[in-house]
Amino acid sequence: MTILDIIIKKRDGYELSKEEIDFFIKGLVNGEIPDYQVSALLMAIYFNGMTDDEITNLTISMADSGEKVDLSDIEGIKADKHSTGGVGDTTTLIAAPIAASCGAIIAKMSGRGLSFSGGTLDKLESLPGVSISKSIDELKNIVRSNGVCVVGQTKNLVPADKLLYSLRDVTGTVDSIPLIASSVMSKKLASGADVIVIDVKVGNGAFMSDVSKAEKLAQTMVSIGRNNGKKVVAVLSDMNSPLGKNIGNALEVKEALDVLSGKVDVSDRLVYVSLVIAGYIIFLSGNAKCFDEAFDMAKNALFSGKALEKFENMLMYLGADKKDIDNIDNFIKTENTLEIKAEKTGYVNAIYAKNIGIASLKLGAGREKKDDNIDHAVGIVLNCRVGDKVNKGDTLAFINYNNKENIRIAEELVKTAMIIEDDRAEDIPLIYKIIGG
Amino acid sequence: MTILDIIIKKRDGYELSKEEIDFFIKGLVNGEIPDYQVSALLMAIYFNGMTDDEITNLTISMADSGEKVDLSDIEGIKADKHSTGGVGDTTTLIAAPIAASCGAIIAKMSGRGLSFSGGTLDKLESLPGVSISKSIDELKNIVRSNGVCVVGQTKNLVPADKLLYSLRDVTGTVDSIPLIASSVMSKKLASGADVIVIDVKVGNGAFMSDVSKAEKLAQTMVSIGRNNGKKVVAVLSDMNSPLGKNIGNALEVKEALDVLSGKVDVSDRLVYVSLVIAGYIIFLSGNAKCFDEAFDMAKNALFSGKALEKFENMLMYLGADKKDIDNIDNFIKTENTLEIKAEKTGYVNAIYAKNIGIASLKLGAGREKKDDNIDHAVGIVLNCRVGDKVNKGDTLAFINYNNKENIRIAEELVKTAMIIEDDRAEDIPLIYKIIGG
Repeated sequence: MTILDIIIKKRDGYELSKEEIDFFIKGLVNGEIPDYQVSALLMAIYFNGMTDDEITNLTISMADSGEKVDLSDIEGIKADKHSTGGVGDTTTLIAAPIAASCGAIIAKMSGRGLSFSGGTLDKLESLPGVSISKSIDELKNIVRSNGVCVVGQTKNLVPADKLLYSLRDVTGTVDSIPLIASSVMSKKLASGADVIVIDVKVGNGAFMSDVSKAEKLAQTMVSIGRNNGKKVVAVLSDMNSPLGKNIGNALEVKEALDVLSGKVDVSDRLVYVSLVIAGYIIFLSGNAKCFDEAFDMAKNALFSGKALEKFENMLMYLGADKKDIDNIDNFIKTENTLEIKAEKTGYVNAIYAKNIGIASLKLGAGREKKDDNIDHAVGIVLNCRVGDKVNKGDTLAFINYNNKENIRIAEELVKTAMIIEDDRAEDIPLIYKIIGG
Repeated sequence: MTILDIIIKKRDGYELSKEEIDFFIKGLVNGEIPDYQVSALLMAIYFNGMTDDEITNLTISMADSGEKVDLSDIEGIKADKHSTGGVGDTTTLIAAPIAASCGAIIAKMSGRGLSFSGGTLDKLESLPGVSISKSIDELKNIVRSNGVCVVGQTKNLVPADKLLYSLRDVTGTVDSIPLIASSVMSKKLASGADVIVIDVKVGNGAFMSDVSKAEKLAQTMVSIGRNNGKKVVAVLSDMNSPLGKNIGNALEVKEALDVLSGKVDVSDRLVYVSLVIAGYIIFLSGNAKCFDEAFDMAKNALFSGKALEKFENMLMYLGADKKDIDNIDNFIKTENTLEIKAEKTGYVNAIYAKNIGIASLKLGAGREKKDDNIDHAVGIVLNCRVGDKVNKGDTLAFINYNNKENIRIAEELVKTAMIIEDDRAEDIPLIYKIIGG
């Protein structure tokens, strides 16, 4: 078996065997296969795709490439969730505490922001004292006490994915369903949960804007999980406009705290998607007889304040001070605020999510380069939602910023994101589809 | 402009601009583009192909990547020929002297053997004293005196091709018409000739066995050449059985000397193809009014001994001794000879060229690894031709060998190559097509 034979086999459209895929991943991780052969194979996979068996074998091989988390010594069914990434997507910080307060057990390893898409770890670090670097034993202890904890990935979790991703990023092979699905699911498999709920974001503010392609990705991930004995559901949710009203790090923690305080409407985009995700976690973990029951439990937990308690406890386990949590407003203060006003009267027919995400990135809420520092306080607060009627001069959004360098760019992006028209456009669905539900 | 943008553009099926292709080749040669991005782009080219403009631009950019040979200070039209490689393909050593003796001027840089296909330089080095490493000035001086010379490539001729080829070889991207065509034609453009005749070999003993694919390759090469102001013809010739009767290095020099001595039949495979190639060189160089006249001139040169004189002079210019040329039999002597005999009476319906080529390689006539030493004396002498009637026990071939290590393999390959059947099969064409004639 040689890697050249494997490249040619995939190039010519044949199915790779489990042994061939294992050979590839082992050679990748131990450095025996040079990058130029890896990237040729990735491009051949980009063009010829992979069968379900190949994707499952690739995922298993990747999951086995490093340290795996064993959660079996925590009693009960353990759950995990994953979002493919979006703008104002604070779902994890809301859905995980809700589900935990309904009996689910959630030990989740999360990621950082990527381009215009926010990252849960960056958000958590908005509060002083928070450290997301926990050992697996520390994670388990918190989960045993609190039922939920979100931490950073251990260093040696799926090293094959880190190597593949860094090559995909520079060789035009990111946008491949088998490669995306195996990347996500290898980390989920290695993280040890029994239940996995995946939030596949669709729209201009996600990494995929085509519903049918997102559906194919979702089906692929669900099938990989099931082939590995996991309970998996994928939710296809809209990311054409930002999910929450706040975009930024501390801003999104604040919004999560607000939502969990029950000061919200269930029909709000962020709240509704969070309840659906929480509902599937609760149901698949065996804490409800059906999804509808689970959804009701989630709603009750939200309004009862139980979920808020779980979230606050989690923040404190990670090192936050209760005083700071209660005074979250201190951490969203910036030197300047710019108001974006409606230039005409009409209906807000779209808030182009990608613009808002990039504007937030430009303010310093995300990283343009890998080692950039994040400004946790800055971001954008939307003062309107898609479908709202606004009058000329109404404030559509606030831009909270410290550094003036990119403020003109951010302003232009936020302004341009707002589509105000005389007639109200038809609603876009919030949930496109549930795969495996 | 970034190489990632270029990879993605090609991946998505768009045409690369001249600027983008130049950026790629420059970055390749100066080492700024890493191998893993080059190989990703090569695989994308493999899948999506290239337009005529892209191929022409790639070829020009490659040709310009290193030193170019300027033959303009040799008076008259200069010609070059190229074979895509085959077994017992001694055409260059026969056609070039023939064409030169009819007034053509041939300054050719040749290559070494590759896998089962022989190389002209290796053949020339069978004679003691021959050195194929000549400066461009030395080459020109020989051509001025003798009208023909074949030497090795200068070190810095088309460095882009050397880099690309070594990557293609290990990433499954050899078999791509735009990449093959640009590889061949960039070297031809950089070598400075006005007339180029390409012998595209088709069959099991060539690197391409499909006539329509070979035709596409030939058309691509002809069009690249014409777009660069060259006169180009491509001859599609059969390589399902070996072209000459001798396969090996000194053995093929001997066969060239035999043919040029006029001791042959024009209908012989090797002789006929050589005359066609020589004819096109003569015609395109302006030494005949039409191909038929050129073909007749070539035939006359062969039988008159004029071409032999050109060949012997060329060998002497390269350093060979006339005594050695006259006693070429001394250089094909091996310690052992094995006869392969017909196991049944019937017609030789096929001599599977690839088996014969590999057998010769295994005896040491070629290199399995880059630095292997060549045994110039060894090889295979066919004692029959496709179409011959043979009786059981007749000698079909001689295997001349020194090292016993691989003789059983070589024997098996040669035996298996011979297909003897009761009924004579239909003839395979020797020349499939002339492109651009």
